[in-house]
Amino acid sequence: MSTSNGLFLTFEGIDGSGKSTQARLLADRLRARGHDVVLTREPGGSPGAEEIRRLVLEGDPDRWSAETEILLFTAARRDHLERTILPALAAGKVVICDRFADSTRMYQGLSRGDLRAVVDQLHALLIGREPDMTILIDMDPETGLSRAKGRQGTEERFEDFGVDLQHKMRAGFQALAREFANRFQTIDGNRPLGDVAQDVEARVLKALA
Amino acid sequence: MSTSNGLFLTFEGIDGSGKSTQARLLADRLRARGHDVVLTREPGGSPGAEEIRRLVLEGDPDRWSAETEILLFTAARRDHLERTILPALAAGKVVICDRFADSTRMYQGLSRGDLRAVVDQLHALLIGREPDMTILIDMDPETGLSRAKGRQGTEERFEDFGVDLQHKMRAGFQALAREFANRFQTIDGNRPLGDVAQDVEARVLKALA
Repeated sequence: MSTSNGLFLTFEGIDGSGKSTQARLLADRLRARGHDVVLTREPGGSPGAEEIRRLVLEGDPDRWSAETEILLFTAARRDHLERTILPALAAGKVVICDRFADSTRMYQGLSRGDLRAVVDQLHALLIGREPDMTILIDMDPETGLSRAKGRQGTEERFEDFGVDLQHKMRAGFQALAREFANRFQTIDGNRPLGDVAQDVEARVLKALA
Repeated sequence: MSTSNGLFLTFEGIDGSGKSTQARLLADRLRARGHDVVLTREPGGSPGAEEIRRLVLEGDPDRWSAETEILLFTAARRDHLERTILPALAAGKVVICDRFADSTRMYQGLSRGDLRAVVDQLHALLIGREPDMTILIDMDPETGLSRAKGRQGTEERFEDFGVDLQHKMRAGFQALAREFANRFQTIDGNRPLGDVAQDVEARVLKALA
């Protein structure tokens, strides 16, 4: 779509892995070093995509089929990419995005294995762009779950799962990290916040050098 | 998705062609003959799809790119198909739908020719179903435009075009009728309402026989 000079970083991980916190900490650290940073998230990240987010995540969990949900997520991602991510990259900024296409690959593929091909074909047709680097905050599923449950929220329905599913999700992300080994960086999230942040920053600074 | 025993009919045509009126008249006539009819429309036709319709058609015309709009229309169509059309067909009903995928092929393809391939690939991937019969109400563009302008509405932004575009849209629908000659029936809409309705009914009764 447009040539990008910036760096496109995404964070992935199971619920409660601390990826949103780490995304924020990385933004702070890079800004302190003088980088122009756009911190964003999915689903959402642009006014239109936030409206689609509400349509998908609010209301009865069964209101949309898995296929319709994938189409809505892809519509939101397309808008987010066009309006927020690509303009920032074209201006040379660092874009840090909390979740991106890998979350769709993992969650939709996990709920119904036959959907992974649909997700991939839709991505190829209408998104196309992959992150320059994806940071997977890898986390013990039991710890992640107890952290996620400690939070409140109206949009947490994806987190209402249990330990078995947390294990499957972790394995799903680890499989994606192997599949896209060229851009994935797996970080051990079972450590104090500051240690994890330090590790994330070191990997990103290498990519920015 | 499911085996259908009913008949899936769609109406297409330029704005002001009278297709919505003809869809309604056909529903009345078939019901009078004892058929179980579901009259529906796109975009919309199911609670979820109506919500997506509002997202697409209300607000600033430039709020979505053509690509995002196609994704949203396809999401709405998928929901409409799953929740309204396929269950009705499976129950042996006649489904009459005011606009369907051909409208997306025509309008999006017309606004940017390179999008027709995207529309077709999305359709193949997530919709798949074509109507059993598509009734094209063919209409003189000047007459259609003056009729369309006589109406009011907040969702009429696709009609704010002019005669040149009406000519192109008519040609676009005629080209689709040639491309999908096996299911298209072109009806001359430049006649009194009752004559057109009679003609439509005769073609449909033949398909129902």
